Parts: sequence; C-alpha cells; structure tokens
Amino acid sequence: MSDQTPATPSTAKTAVTPPRQTTPPARFSHGVRKGGLLQVAGQVGFGPAEPGQSPSPVGPGLREQTWQTLENVRAVLEEGGASWEDAIMVRVYLTDTEHFAEFNAIYDEYFAGLTGPPAARTTVYVGLPAGLIVEIDALAVL
Amino acid sequence: MSDQTPATPSTAKTAVTPPRQTTPPARFSHGVRKGGLLQVAGQVGFGPAEPGQSPSPVGPGLREQTWQTLENVRAVLEEGGASWEDAIMVRVYLTDTEHFAEFNAIYDEYFAGLTGPPAARTTVYVGLPAGLIVEIDALAVL
Amino acid sequence: MSDQTPATPSTAKTAVTPPRQTTPPARFSHGVRKGGLLQVAGQVGFGPAEPGQSPSPVGPGLREQTWQTLENVRAVLEEGGASWEDAIMVRVYLTDTEHFAEFNAIYDEYFAGLTGPPAARTTVYVGLPAGLIVEIDALAVL
Repeated sequence: MSDQTPATPSTAKTAVTPPRQTTPPARFSHGVRKGGLLQVAGQVGFGPAEPGQSPSPVGPGLREQTWQTLENVRAVLEEGGASWEDAIMVRVYLTDTEHFAEFNAIYDEYFAGLTGPPAARTTVYVGLPAGLIVEIDALAVL
Repeated sequence: MSDQTPATPSTAKTAVTPPRQTTPPARFSHGVRKGGLLQVAGQVGFGPAEPGQSPSPVGPGLREQTWQTLENVRAVLEEGGASWEDAIMVRVYLTDTEHFAEFNAIYDEYFAGLTGPPAARTTVYVGLPAGLIVEIDALAVL
Repeated sequence: MSDQTPATPSTAKTAVTPPRQTTPPARFSHGVRKGGLLQVAGQVGFGPAEPGQSPSPVGPGLREQTWQTLENVRAVLEEGGASWEDAIMVRVYLTDTEHFAEFNAIYDEYFAGLTGPPAARTTVYVGLPAGLIVEIDALAVL
C-alpha cells in the first residue's frame, strides 16, 4: 500500500441475486451492493431460469431481447433495494449498428414511465455469443 | 429486497445537460449526478447543437473528433460542478487499432495541463455508427 | 454549474501505480483512488516491466494472458489498499467468442479462494491491439 493511501475500513459487500435469474456461467454475481453503490452485471435476454434447462434468449428479435434484458437489469436493481430511478449509468452493447434506431425506440418506450432524470448511457457495437444481440449493465447509487 | 440489504434513503439524482450539447437520441442524460458521483454518458465528436440540424461530427479525422469528444465530456463535467481533475475513469472506444498511437498523442496533448493524477483509462475497439471513429465516457467523484 | 448542483468540496485523488507495472502508453493512471472508490484501468497480459524493453504479453495463449491480466488488476487493487474482495465490477474484453468457456474456467480457478461474494461482471468481444486477446478492468469500493 502506498504512503498516500489512508487505511479505510471496508464497507460490507453483498451479492444481489434475483431468485428467477439464470445462474451466471462463472464466479460472478448478477449484482453487488457495497458502500452505497449497486453494480448490475451484464444482463442478456434470457427468460426466467427453468430447472434442468440451459439459459436461452426469449426470442431472436431485438424487441423481445431488449425488453427482457432491461427487465433482468430491473430485477437486480430491485432485489438490491434500488430502481431505475437510482441508476446513473446504463451500458448498452449491441451487435449491429443497424439496430440503433429501433433500439432507441424500444428504450424510450421502456422508460416512458420514469419520473426522475434518466441515467446516462453509452452504446457501442461488439461481438456477443451466438444468439444474443444485446447486453446491458447498469450502475446505481443508493 | 433481500434480508441482507439495509434500507438506505436515496440520494438526489440530477441530470447534467450542457446547453449547447446536441439532444440525446433516446431517453438518456448526457450526465447524471448522484451521491457524490458524476457519470458522463458516451460522447462523440458532434459540434455544438444547431437549431433544425441533425448532429454531425466535426470532421472525419481522428484529431478533430477526439478533441471535440473530449471537449464534450468536459462540458458535462463542468456543468455538473466537476472537472477533469475529478475524473477517475475514462472509457475510450475506438474503431480501428491503427489509431492507437495517434490517439495517445492527441490524448496526451489534450491533458498536458492536468495538475493532478490522470484518470484511469480503458481503450477497446468496437463498432460505432457511420462517420464516428471515437466515443468516450467518464466517471468523476466529487 | 446548474442551480440544482450543490457545491461539494472535492475529495482527494490519488494515482495508484504498482512499481513493477509497465508504464501506461499515454497520460492515464493504472489506478485512481478518490472518495472511497478505486478504479483500475484496463489491464492486459504484460509481464513485469523490464528496463529498456517494450511491454509484451506473457504468452499467446488465453490461460497465460488471462492469469497475468488478473494479477495485474490485483496489483493495482492491492497497491490502492484494496483486494478482490472489495471489487464490485469486473469488465472483461475478449477478442473471440470461442474463448468464453475456457475463459470462464480460468476465471473460476483464479477466484476459487474468494471468501466474499464475487464481483459483478460484463464480458464483451472487441478488437484489441495485435497480440492481445484479453483486457480487464475493475471498480472497487473501499
């Protein structure tokens, strides 16, 4: 530890795991709450977990996957005691620049009921595993 | 809400909107301030908003777009009561790995006047909408 | 500054620089600590800095690069007075979707000794400079 770094007692860290979310494919948490922050892991358009079945996206289309992905982020936020109103950042990963306009229309529809200022957002175009066309994560402040 | 999650009163959330920035293409804020954090949304090289005109990048080249993008991030930081000195993270999205060296030279020139420690940074290569070759967001702590 | 933004005295900002890490290629810090947050910049699989030599990845393979990358993140966390137990988010940038399963196996092995809840994680597939197949950054709360 460098001399400039004061020793700070660590705050408690809590995993946030919505009961119906599919199990992460590795040792990470769907959400983590620590020190007034709630970080939501990258969510995709998987429907609720079904015993004995592999996770699969709710549909091939952008609308279904986007809506389910946002609902999965919301489930983590709410399980952690937060809501979209607390989110300060939403990171959107799409796979096709042609999806931008349609994605924005779906996004605006999804957030039509928001009463406070919307979160900031960054949208970039990346590769995702086969079958997935959108991934979203979020950071909230409690 | 899980049993481990204490009920915390939410802090106020404020949208940060520089007056000359172009309107976001969807329901998101250019910046959000909440609980001591200021999150800047992904900025691109659009010049100042002109009434009745669609946003467009200031130039096709890396130098012009990078400089304008950094200026757009700065506008959000300053509108939110912060500066580059408060930024802890800068996320850089380029479209071409061949741009890395030139981008770094521009970045260093832009930040030559920084008096405190520079922010951390992650740079990756993604797809962006046509005409855009750089996107940057930032997180500041007040 | 907008009317809604209260004037907040800034917290101190500290660069976090592990002594053996290679020098960043531009004006950014390997880590920054400010206001209870520790942000780790994107790390890659470079071995320890050697005087007079350019940084180079420890190996061409996913296992070697991933392990070294995680060790480089850890070095920043520890230099900043934190550990993996304090990390709330890990961002993983891979270059090939075919690496997902093997990456997860390595990730789980690396974190086998974690005693608290694992960090959240987002994994996307991007371009990286030649020779690099994985980049990772992290956010910790003290």
